Amino acid sequence: MNTFGKIFRISIFGESHGINIGVVIDGVPAGLLIDNKDFAIDLGRRKSGAKGTTSRQEEDMPNIVSGVFNDHTTGAPVTILFSNSNVDSKDYDSTEEFPRPGHADFVASKKFKGFEDYRGGGHFSGRITLGLVVAGVIAKKIISPIKIESKILEAGGDANIEKAVEKALREKDSIGGIIQCTARNMPIGIGEPFFDSLESVLSHIIFSIPAIKGIEFGTGFAAAKMKGSEHNDCYVDINGKTRTNNAGGINGGISNGNDLVFRVVVKPTSSILQTQKTMNFKTGKMATLNIAGRHDACIALRMPVITEAATAIAIVDLLMLDKARSI
Amino acid sequence: MNTFGKIFRISIFGESHGINIGVVIDGVPAGLLIDNKDFAIDLGRRKSGAKGTTSRQEEDMPNIVSGVFNDHTTGAPVTILFSNSNVDSKDYDSTEEFPRPGHADFVASKKFKGFEDYRGGGHFSGRITLGLVVAGVIAKKIISPIKIESKILEAGGDANIEKAVEKALREKDSIGGIIQCTARNMPIGIGEPFFDSLESVLSHIIFSIPAIKGIEFGTGFAAAKMKGSEHNDCYVDINGKTRTNNAGGINGGISNGNDLVFRVVVKPTSSILQTQKTMNFKTGKMATLNIAGRHDACIALRMPVITEAATAIAIVDLLMLDKARSI
Amino acid sequence: MNTFGKIFRISIFGESHGINIGVVIDGVPAGLLIDNKDFAIDLGRRKSGAKGTTSRQEEDMPNIVSGVFNDHTTGAPVTILFSNSNVDSKDYDSTEEFPRPGHADFVASKKFKGFEDYRGGGHFSGRITLGLVVAGVIAKKIISPIKIESKILEAGGDANIEKAVEKALREKDSIGGIIQCTARNMPIGIGEPFFDSLESVLSHIIFSIPAIKGIEFGTGFAAAKMKGSEHNDCYVDINGKTRTNNAGGINGGISNGNDLVFRVVVKPTSSILQTQKTMNFKTGKMATLNIAGRHDACIALRMPVITEAATAIAIVDLLMLDKARSI
Amino acid sequence: MNTFGKIFRISIFGESHGINIGVVIDGVPAGLLIDNKDFAIDLGRRKSGAKGTTSRQEEDMPNIVSGVFNDHTTGAPVTILFSNSNVDSKDYDSTEEFPRPGHADFVASKKFKGFEDYRGGGHFSGRITLGLVVAGVIAKKIISPIKIESKILEAGGDANIEKAVEKALREKDSIGGIIQCTARNMPIGIGEPFFDSLESVLSHIIFSIPAIKGIEFGTGFAAAKMKGSEHNDCYVDINGKTRTNNAGGINGGISNGNDLVFRVVVKPTSSILQTQKTMNFKTGKMATLNIAGRHDACIALRMPVITEAATAIAIVDLLMLDKARSI
Repeated sequence: MNTFGKIFRISIFGESHGINIGVVIDGVPAGLLIDNKDFAIDLGRRKSGAKGTTSRQEEDMPNIVSGVFNDHTTGAPVTILFSNSNVDSKDYDSTEEFPRPGHADFVASKKFKGFEDYRGGGHFSGRITLGLVVAGVIAKKIISPIKIESKILEAGGDANIEKAVEKALREKDSIGGIIQCTARNMPIGIGEPFFDSLESVLSHIIFSIPAIKGIEFGTGFAAAKMKGSEHNDCYVDINGKTRTNNAGGINGGISNGNDLVFRVVVKPTSSILQTQKTMNFKTGKMATLNIAGRHDACIALRMPVITEAATAIAIVDLLMLDKARSI
Repeated sequence: MNTFGKIFRISIFGESHGINIGVVIDGVPAGLLIDNKDFAIDLGRRKSGAKGTTSRQEEDMPNIVSGVFNDHTTGAPVTILFSNSNVDSKDYDSTEEFPRPGHADFVASKKFKGFEDYRGGGHFSGRITLGLVVAGVIAKKIISPIKIESKILEAGGDANIEKAVEKALREKDSIGGIIQCTARNMPIGIGEPFFDSLESVLSHIIFSIPAIKGIEFGTGFAAAKMKGSEHNDCYVDINGKTRTNNAGGINGGISNGNDLVFRVVVKPTSSILQTQKTMNFKTGKMATLNIAGRHDACIALRMPVITEAATAIAIVDLLMLDKARSI
Repeated sequence: MNTFGKIFRISIFGESHGINIGVVIDGVPAGLLIDNKDFAIDLGRRKSGAKGTTSRQEEDMPNIVSGVFNDHTTGAPVTILFSNSNVDSKDYDSTEEFPRPGHADFVASKKFKGFEDYRGGGHFSGRITLGLVVAGVIAKKIISPIKIESKILEAGGDANIEKAVEKALREKDSIGGIIQCTARNMPIGIGEPFFDSLESVLSHIIFSIPAIKGIEFGTGFAAAKMKGSEHNDCYVDINGKTRTNNAGGINGGISNGNDLVFRVVVKPTSSILQTQKTMNFKTGKMATLNIAGRHDACIALRMPVITEAATAIAIVDLLMLDKARSI
Repeated sequence: MNTFGKIFRISIFGESHGINIGVVIDGVPAGLLIDNKDFAIDLGRRKSGAKGTTSRQEEDMPNIVSGVFNDHTTGAPVTILFSNSNVDSKDYDSTEEFPRPGHADFVASKKFKGFEDYRGGGHFSGRITLGLVVAGVIAKKIISPIKIESKILEAGGDANIEKAVEKALREKDSIGGIIQCTARNMPIGIGEPFFDSLESVLSHIIFSIPAIKGIEFGTGFAAAKMKGSEHNDCYVDINGKTRTNNAGGINGGISNGNDLVFRVVVKPTSSILQTQKTMNFKTGKMATLNIAGRHDACIALRMPVITEAATAIAIVDLLMLDKARSI
């Protein structure tokens, strides 16, 4: 389903080579100052162009077609459209015969019975995250003074990202990476257990982002080797600040006022420039596959701003849920 | 919020020392053969009693009070109650002054303004997972022949679980662990991107389970160090079977017919028998805390069946969503 | 589906002759003073016993099994159970052969493939409204100072209710009626267009109540014969009070601060003591049917408190939604 | 909230004088043949131009920007945009000082704190129903062979619609009307009690349509004066056909296979060309108001196709819910 959120609700739509990619953002408070320029910074961070990102260049100019009047949100749904101009569909034949390994091609053709728009990954394209980023910009405004910051910790197993990307490009291969996201100035009390714990809601939206295959909060997987006496964070002031932050700012599914900290793993891009072995699904025989099109060698490079957006969207909805009950 | 699912919907309720723990399961197909004995095996696996689990002994007898007639589901909501009999509330004073490190005590008292039922962890108690387990039993019946199996891979960093637990007991400490969950006979096409990817829905319910702090699908975090040429799973037959399963059975958020595989990390239990340092929130001075009550030294021991239940519940709902569109 | 509401969410369950009828109420603010006695007045108003209501006498004693601690709501789900003690199931054979005209028997046996609990109407019984009434009591507390009041305007076409009921009893027949519901002290701004207009949400829950077949707001159906110059309510003060209230307190789907006023029609009870013609669904031949069991001659008599409860539940959820966006 | 439906989900957006009006339709099965021409008939029926409808002439050309590929639905969200070209915003000053009686102006300015787009009614404009109509066209395709037909029964209390409209135009006034909607070839079993009865879901979406103030199913309000022996519909064949259809095709909230029949009342348009008395909300003194702009004298004329669309949307979602549980 293409809608996320209970109160601050975003609905995304569009395909990689379709007419428009976009998002409808419902539940936005009225009176928020909005300007196309507000989106420029985050869209710029998401944009391709750096070494290791696709050569497809799109203007990514957001067009606000509803919900904003006299530069302020009206309380009605905010709809933002993007055009797909730099489209080169000739590279894409139906992927039914040769679904690309690691891609959604195979499952999409089964689930949607061959009617899916396979050009450029269609609705599965990372381009869909444009809507996420602009919704994130609005969410960030609302949750202020909470401040979210994501950064890439490593790529291809190397903390020297540039070096790792260059190596991947040389090898006509792709690499994964790890992103860390931190939210500062968190209030206490965000998260709605049992089923809408802060981890639940965050991981739900985070795993919507293509290529993400794992998430861990605080010390995460390292906690498996820790003792309770080590993992328990000791309170050091009456605001609930703790000496360590092994919990990543969350106890019992609820924010505890310390920094929210989590990491995600981004798998290496599936599209690589090397020849790959694969099945020819028409003949049932093994064959070789060369992927054309323009692709990212390290999609993780574009992930920090996308994970920030997802985090802001999850937090604003949980903030609103918490507020709702305070009548 | 205490309801999960869009069609197969479960609503859980209850507190550790309240009258009843329970679950309402809505959206169950009519005509399913149900018997109290069906629940016995999974409830037994969840039960305490083994070394490393709490000494609190509850009968955990499920009482079906609605939705079953002549031993079959009726299509109306199935409600299952459990009694809390072995309750020892004298150990629990208000936790406002001394919230236990690592527990929900502090956030609960802030979020619910001191009105929370703090006895035995109240609504945050692991006891709430009883409802999850019985709902999982029903979900497993519906999704047959899909077969879900969870096991503990390591505890306290040791693959010899028993040894690790004994060490923790000796040290009056607690340990975490890693659980791996596998679903076999998965159909192709389960998962509803963009926002309800199979990873999204699974992680959402998995992070509802107390003490879980991370999840990874397929090779998970190890993918950060892999190249695309290594991570891409090569198709080897026309049903979509792949040679490797780095994707954990999911591409583009949709099941690809290979085994669904994921791992979760369980943090060490927060309640330990050692004296801990903590803040006295009334005086604002550091103090020492001794936790009474009965607790698990390794809560991970009870997690396999709980993660199976959560997985079955997520899968049945996604199966129903996929079916819904086939009209 | 058996759950209503986005934030203040109620899940009902149970069957007429099952073990328990009940409700789980999620999203209740913490700190609300609750006492079993709070429910007595509204449950008493719903109760049978008056002339024209069924002779089945149930104690209707609410048993709060979760979510309340030290007489206050905790913020966790409030679960309230009722026992079915005065059950006489011998009157109920399977209704597949002779589904009662006007009842859910026929559709239930088709939809649930013969597995439905047909005793006493099963999950379709008016007895299910017990959960609605107690949830309404809690909702009324939260929305204070809004004050909801329902009354029966007419029964069997007669404004002398008692006379009409006596006539129906003499004739071994049943009668319908009209209920009017008014909510005073309404704030301005309740309702979330486009799809969650105040009328939408109210009518949604109101039509859950068995036997209701129509609803109209303000002048309602009479508006079909009015001119705009007559129907438009003229503002008379700067708080938005209007001279007339043809709109029933709602413009554009949003409360305007005037009294919320609507009427519903209750159809005559389907179960009548007269012999009826019907189809024998096994033989396909016409036959005669005599309905045993205990039934209401005028179910409308019990509707005022049930419609009040439904209204309070709808309003509290919309109040919370409106509040949510004010962060 | 601007999204409706659980599986077939529509999200509407736009304002009367904004850039685009539109709808995102999620949950559409893949493989449905779609063509812009499919929308022409229903959009034409909705269009203004007849006597009694506004003189604002819009092309109402649907622009499908996502979810359709090679003329078939892809399974991804279908987004359809409309442009607002014939916009004359000079007529619309802020309505805060003089909110139009009967309109949403007053409540919108309170709820959205003066930030609402007041031009042409903004998001409250009947123009928003464009999205409903095109979503209805798709829904009608899916639910085939169910056939929905709405017609206007009376306007201004007169069954001679044309005469009534001419009289209203002469009097510079507006009139209401009654619409009857019928769905034929209904399957048995549509509707999900307790809370998602067929009446509940239908009324929910029907009351989203501006100007509708009442709905009744089958004999509706007339049932208040009937006896059970009259109202009960007698079964006459083993498919559940009944001699009469007082229930309007619904028992216990579930379709019984007979025609679904309901009527709605449309209030007279609030905007009339006569001078009206109103409050000046700045001075607190009574004043006179002349409404400029272009308006419908009888908005009921455009309602048949809109109610058909709403009905189709409600039915398709309930059909999908029923199907979902048949796994």
